[in-house]
Amino acid sequence: MNKTNVAIVGLGTVGSGVAKLLLDHGDRTARHAGRTMWLKKAVVRDLNKPRDVELPDGVATDNLADVLDDPDITVVAQLIGGLEPARTIMLQLMEAGKDIVTANKALLAEHGPELFSKARELGRSIAFEAAVAGGIPIVANISQCLSANQITTLEGILNGTSNFIVSQMDRYGSAYDDVVRKAQELGYAEADPTMDVDGTDAAQKLAILAHLAFGATIHWSDIPRTGIDGLDPADLRYSSELGYRIKLVATAHQADDGLELSVAPTLVPLGTPLAEVRDAFNAIRVVGDAVGPVFYHGLGAGQMPTASAVVADLIDTAVGRTKITFQTLAYFTSDHPARTKQRDTDRLAGRYYLRLSVGNHPGALAKIADVLAQHEISISSVIQHENQPDQAGQQQTDPVPLVIMTHEAGEGAARRATEQIEGLSIVQGPVVRLRVKA
Amino acid sequence: MNKTNVAIVGLGTVGSGVAKLLLDHGDRTARHAGRTMWLKKAVVRDLNKPRDVELPDGVATDNLADVLDDPDITVVAQLIGGLEPARTIMLQLMEAGKDIVTANKALLAEHGPELFSKARELGRSIAFEAAVAGGIPIVANISQCLSANQITTLEGILNGTSNFIVSQMDRYGSAYDDVVRKAQELGYAEADPTMDVDGTDAAQKLAILAHLAFGATIHWSDIPRTGIDGLDPADLRYSSELGYRIKLVATAHQADDGLELSVAPTLVPLGTPLAEVRDAFNAIRVVGDAVGPVFYHGLGAGQMPTASAVVADLIDTAVGRTKITFQTLAYFTSDHPARTKQRDTDRLAGRYYLRLSVGNHPGALAKIADVLAQHEISISSVIQHENQPDQAGQQQTDPVPLVIMTHEAGEGAARRATEQIEGLSIVQGPVVRLRVKA
Repeated sequence: MNKTNVAIVGLGTVGSGVAKLLLDHGDRTARHAGRTMWLKKAVVRDLNKPRDVELPDGVATDNLADVLDDPDITVVAQLIGGLEPARTIMLQLMEAGKDIVTANKALLAEHGPELFSKARELGRSIAFEAAVAGGIPIVANISQCLSANQITTLEGILNGTSNFIVSQMDRYGSAYDDVVRKAQELGYAEADPTMDVDGTDAAQKLAILAHLAFGATIHWSDIPRTGIDGLDPADLRYSSELGYRIKLVATAHQADDGLELSVAPTLVPLGTPLAEVRDAFNAIRVVGDAVGPVFYHGLGAGQMPTASAVVADLIDTAVGRTKITFQTLAYFTSDHPARTKQRDTDRLAGRYYLRLSVGNHPGALAKIADVLAQHEISISSVIQHENQPDQAGQQQTDPVPLVIMTHEAGEGAARRATEQIEGLSIVQGPVVRLRVKA
Repeated sequence: MNKTNVAIVGLGTVGSGVAKLLLDHGDRTARHAGRTMWLKKAVVRDLNKPRDVELPDGVATDNLADVLDDPDITVVAQLIGGLEPARTIMLQLMEAGKDIVTANKALLAEHGPELFSKARELGRSIAFEAAVAGGIPIVANISQCLSANQITTLEGILNGTSNFIVSQMDRYGSAYDDVVRKAQELGYAEADPTMDVDGTDAAQKLAILAHLAFGATIHWSDIPRTGIDGLDPADLRYSSELGYRIKLVATAHQADDGLELSVAPTLVPLGTPLAEVRDAFNAIRVVGDAVGPVFYHGLGAGQMPTASAVVADLIDTAVGRTKITFQTLAYFTSDHPARTKQRDTDRLAGRYYLRLSVGNHPGALAKIADVLAQHEISISSVIQHENQPDQAGQQQTDPVPLVIMTHEAGEGAARRATEQIEGLSIVQGPVVRLRVKA
């Protein structure tokens, strides 16, 4: 039987999972690859650090040259996180003739065009299924399985940490900070969860998917994004009263005049698939003009789901499928102009949820409705409850929370109306404004 | 740009859809294939029959030899249904050097081993994404995307017609026959819907998926199957009262001592993804030992979803990916023994829903419970309502419907207990027995 020699660079959580699959399930991998996938080297920073995988003698090394200089190693899983030295190592590996499999989404989001150009120049390939939505094979599905379609919409829950936090806040009515602590204890959130909760991670994944699905070349930082870090349990409660659940939704929609992209906490109708995505799961809904809607749901992160994607890519690369796909689709090529451009943000259309604190003055609602009318935004529903008695049993009258759901409006109009409402003397504090999924 | 000449044999609903995608979206297909996909011939039975696609001059022919004898045509979408002449034509095409893309699931379920052996012998490939679950690319997902996994469970709603009928019965409380007529009017059921509603179609699809996922070589007719054709709206009502929805579920589960396979109306817990699959949609849940659960939902049939799968396969075949996969995975090879065998049906374990008509005799429930106990089947819940008054206002007392949910039991024990209960003098008519999903 043929043999492909594989190396892993970076033996963290995912790297250890990849090593386990290659070492413990060689027969299975061989069956699916039609060849032995032989783990020849694993490059680590510290040889003495304890790991949850036992490597055969001679596999572990702290010297990258053991991989670079070994012509028998043709495929490398590059699993170092961050931008540097990950970028430099990936370039070195490709220059040494290795095909690359990576899970490093931040690296691709930042340096994708450079790395893909270099790969093409050198006749190498980069596979990156594991970079987006871990266990959901969305890269292969868009690039190959749905290749007969013009994709019109792609929307999903792409960040498991955020979804875990929002799910917990929703289920238990807990405050954001308390749930973040719980998520950190359970390993669902990192010590510094900023990139997950502020929408950066989801925007980086969306930028990659938008390139595959729409041929758009957009830097993640140009995608308008709001995280879940400011979310108030009150908004989860009101949403549920209105028949919605709040989720951090990443959306790409091809409109006639450009591509609408956004990452934002969004009210999703209860009972629809995205609303039912719980805890650390990810989900993606793709609409193609031929296939119609296709929905994917699976674990978006974690050691073995991500390792599953890496090993599938290692097999695809070893058998030659990756090379064909990589050459055919010409990802991030500078000679192909982007097929679609991002649409002017102000023109993104959607419905909005607004929550205000309003003083108890006659005509307050009329004043607010008037501002919305000036911006041609019409109201679809309103919630205003009597205040609960305070702990001393005193009826609270001032301020009262007022929740307004609008009909469809442009993002620009909604933003300007919100700013104007915040300037009204009867309105206290900032207005909470969230998108509502149709 | 390179060009691949393609032919379609059989220009029915799906064939016309494939022609539309190739003719109307040549730029898109070229982008995804890195080459022009040129529809050179479409073989039809009757050149004068009106069709919903307009073919350029010279493309339509009623002579298969125009394809067989044209060496420039290398890839053929063989879209004739049924077993013959589909089988003979496929063999002729392969002998003439063509790679095949097909949507004919019945043909593969019946003659897969012969056709795949012939393809290998001749150095040809057969792609068949469209044969199972139309718009859900489950074949590629199992064969490639999840290749790092041992799949442990695969379960799904694989027949859109049945699901449409059950969904409608459930929503409107309608009788089976009425809904079948409606489904026929709407085009969701054929004039003779037998193969769809009796579980044959789902069993054929399951046999193909079980081969891909578990290396099992099982003839579809050996899969125990029950259709939805005998379903009583009363059982949908009681199921809902118990917190379940009835779906026609196809299941393959790898147990220690073999593969459990079945197609049967099954009580699925409300709120779980399979329970929420409506109308003509299909869904498949795959559990892999590394990736965990992955859930797919999409349109299982229809012109364009199926054409989407065919065209993706045409592209994969033209660029060379299909050949690699076909050679690597060696589907249905007689020299590889099946990796797993079907488990003895009697040992399939599961929970059961039983509905009986019981005469109003003291001790009736005790007698029934006693039979279950003899077979070591324990009861998890019971529903027995008072009868409704009849139209004349008379309280009906005899017989009373009795619904029993059991804890886990073997299929053999459940069947024998059911037969014994049917023999009790207090029980009238047959006992309805349905599986319950954990």
